[in-house]
Amino acid sequence: MTPAQQSLVDEIRSRFGKRTVSTDARDIEPWLTDWRGRWTGKAGAIFQPSSTEEVAAIVTSATRLGVALVPQGGNTSMVGGATPPDDGSALILSLRRMNRIRLIDKAAMRVEAEAGAVLQNLHEAVAAQGLRFPLTLGAKGSATIGGLISTNAGGTQVLRFGPMRALVDGVEAVLPDGTIHDGLSGLKKDNRGYSIDQLLIGAEGTLGIVTAARLKLVPAIHSRAVAWLGLASPQAALDTLRALEAETDRIEGFEILPDESLQAVLSHIPGTRPPLQSHHPWHALVEATADGPGTDNPAELLARLLAPLVERGLVADASISASEAQAEAFWRIRDSLSEAERATFGPATQHDISVPVDAMPAFMVDAAAKVEQAFPGASATGFGHLGDGNIHFHVRAGLRGGTDWLQREGPAVTRLVHDLVTAAGGSISAEHGIGVMKKEELERLSPDRVRVLRAIKISLDPTAVMNPGKLV
Amino acid sequence: MTPAQQSLVDEIRSRFGKRTVSTDARDIEPWLTDWRGRWTGKAGAIFQPSSTEEVAAIVTSATRLGVALVPQGGNTSMVGGATPPDDGSALILSLRRMNRIRLIDKAAMRVEAEAGAVLQNLHEAVAAQGLRFPLTLGAKGSATIGGLISTNAGGTQVLRFGPMRALVDGVEAVLPDGTIHDGLSGLKKDNRGYSIDQLLIGAEGTLGIVTAARLKLVPAIHSRAVAWLGLASPQAALDTLRALEAETDRIEGFEILPDESLQAVLSHIPGTRPPLQSHHPWHALVEATADGPGTDNPAELLARLLAPLVERGLVADASISASEAQAEAFWRIRDSLSEAERATFGPATQHDISVPVDAMPAFMVDAAAKVEQAFPGASATGFGHLGDGNIHFHVRAGLRGGTDWLQREGPAVTRLVHDLVTAAGGSISAEHGIGVMKKEELERLSPDRVRVLRAIKISLDPTAVMNPGKLV
Repeated sequence: MTPAQQSLVDEIRSRFGKRTVSTDARDIEPWLTDWRGRWTGKAGAIFQPSSTEEVAAIVTSATRLGVALVPQGGNTSMVGGATPPDDGSALILSLRRMNRIRLIDKAAMRVEAEAGAVLQNLHEAVAAQGLRFPLTLGAKGSATIGGLISTNAGGTQVLRFGPMRALVDGVEAVLPDGTIHDGLSGLKKDNRGYSIDQLLIGAEGTLGIVTAARLKLVPAIHSRAVAWLGLASPQAALDTLRALEAETDRIEGFEILPDESLQAVLSHIPGTRPPLQSHHPWHALVEATADGPGTDNPAELLARLLAPLVERGLVADASISASEAQAEAFWRIRDSLSEAERATFGPATQHDISVPVDAMPAFMVDAAAKVEQAFPGASATGFGHLGDGNIHFHVRAGLRGGTDWLQREGPAVTRLVHDLVTAAGGSISAEHGIGVMKKEELERLSPDRVRVLRAIKISLDPTAVMNPGKLV
Repeated sequence: MTPAQQSLVDEIRSRFGKRTVSTDARDIEPWLTDWRGRWTGKAGAIFQPSSTEEVAAIVTSATRLGVALVPQGGNTSMVGGATPPDDGSALILSLRRMNRIRLIDKAAMRVEAEAGAVLQNLHEAVAAQGLRFPLTLGAKGSATIGGLISTNAGGTQVLRFGPMRALVDGVEAVLPDGTIHDGLSGLKKDNRGYSIDQLLIGAEGTLGIVTAARLKLVPAIHSRAVAWLGLASPQAALDTLRALEAETDRIEGFEILPDESLQAVLSHIPGTRPPLQSHHPWHALVEATADGPGTDNPAELLARLLAPLVERGLVADASISASEAQAEAFWRIRDSLSEAERATFGPATQHDISVPVDAMPAFMVDAAAKVEQAFPGASATGFGHLGDGNIHFHVRAGLRGGTDWLQREGPAVTRLVHDLVTAAGGSISAEHGIGVMKKEELERLSPDRVRVLRAIKISLDPTAVMNPGKLV
């Protein structure tokens, strides 16, 4: 540690005791590498504050001493956003001890939770009150509220309820100068200038440390049904979604996947079975829910709305879950996809990208063709959140060989994919953020935007103590 | 004009012609005073660009020459946000010529409109397509989209659909350095750092010039009903709203007013009639709508939900509109309220304030009592958007005399009201913004917030050309 880092550690230890800061390698080591093992850093200490006041004290001293901090929640970043730099120039500030659900307000349908609360625990706490926090994603067992806010997380239920930005009703955060921004008052209207809450959402910890949030809740799901559709093309999938949306606002999820991905799941994931008897080049999974017994049964709703689409050939075949077990089985296919793809085809360069929803079907077909043309033998495909205009676009080495090819050519492949996305008016980061992984590409493709982000960053964090090297 | 202002005018005139810039006093004069006649400024020229590119050229040159600009839409600011400074140090940039509805996307339920489009024209354009832009307010015949975004406007339908911030899907703006921020791509997910769109909403023109926006639409109203309720107290009104909201999500508006305000309307506005036969200290107006013929008739819905509340005495009396004419008549009482109050009681100091919704009933009673105690003879009362925790709190001279007293004591009254609001965890600006009117009070009550706002302002507009003297 540098002398300044040592001073910070000593100061915080003498004020708050050993639990709040550790320099023990066994406490630090698990948090130096991101969960996928792609980035590893160094840090001489880890802070583990238990209250907003402790965070404020740490940040105030860190700014005074010029010690950089890397905030960390569940360490589930997809873009290296929570990994410390590899030169040891920053210390880790873990929010995991701040994991209380402070209050659930049933009448106002709001929950106030600390940044370190794990998403799944939040789900369970509000479910016990007959409510639901509708955002969910694969990492829910580890991902924390603070991290989800800082990355404006998405997931599989964005279609109906929006991403984290749409679900945050207020943010409490410690700003780089150590002041506490309290956005938890629950005001429905507040026009006192720029929204600091909104600025912190998706800021990846570069403008301050989110310590707590007030989140919107919706009624618990009374019942749900999941339909599996066989389809001719991504365009048929989108047309199907539009036809459903014209009739109901109860479609929560709409995920698309190519047949090769389904086949990969069926051959590699034990206990999975083909959802349809027939074969189709593309598949979609549709979820509909009901809030209460008064509304239409979701299985009947899907059956009624899908029948005319099958009739006119837009949907080639469909199967609707007759039980919660079958609904789970359909989702399991979707959720096992990345694992099965890796097992079947080996590693891939992955791209979390978005384009306008209407442009996505053509993009999926065109971009795959262009990538395969530029890199003969490689294979490209997309799957995911079609209804959000957001897919995960994977390029696999295919006949070009394995990991070697990917390591050598991966950056060139990624640049091509990002160029295609940018030409289609899209975003090179739909739901994962920028972190360290996409920083150079963001600068290459959006220099005007980066200039604005950087000006804001410098204005609020002039000594650059907040998550250095990430985003801007 | 200063030499720099003259250079800017000459440069723009030579590039874009006379229509784009005028120094004729007859063109300028109507825009020097706000619509309520409270602030008057001076300006040597008015720019009237017809395209985003023209705005970009004006801003680029203005920044280079150090000439301040005051953006203006419909000139309906309630806080002097669009009035030029009185020393002639800024020129006006009017967006009124940029009034096109660029496109209505029925499938995506979105409209793209230029900043100068008048709200009522937008309402009519989307209504012709069977759609609705749900935000509305008294100034809809003049207020423009750019101004509504820049003030994060509210209005009477916020309860169900939220304020402008919730309805903006993307912003196009010219930033102070002349670059065009294009947020109109319609991406449903985009996690490339801080949201510039969100930063511009409610920024009152201090961070750039909003030139266009993509806005969310909802289905047109198929039918609506309005109920007039007689109530014992603001708490009874809120309990009523909560009881209704527990049963339906189709309540669009919930406005509260004291009996003296109703009586003022009945005596001063021709053609108005008492909505109820009985007398009550408080009243509420409730609007419910239906999107299509398939859903419950809204009058039947209100009748069914209100009956048990009348039964148990929470609602003292209720009348439900039996026709659109009667619904209009109920709304007319609400909309005439400010005019009738002025005519009956003379001028008042007015406060657009918010507190957490649950705290509002007690606040309304307590704050009125405290103000009347501090200023014996004055009378204080609140009315408006109870369901948003936002009322307009008026303090009238009463027995203390008229305009003289207000001019002398008004600032002290306002400070007391703002202190009470702040103590209740509220906001001194719920939906009108800060402008010039509330700038000093914001700084007095929220110095930490102002420091953050100012840092952001300086970072993006270092030469202070954007709406100087407003907000920060």
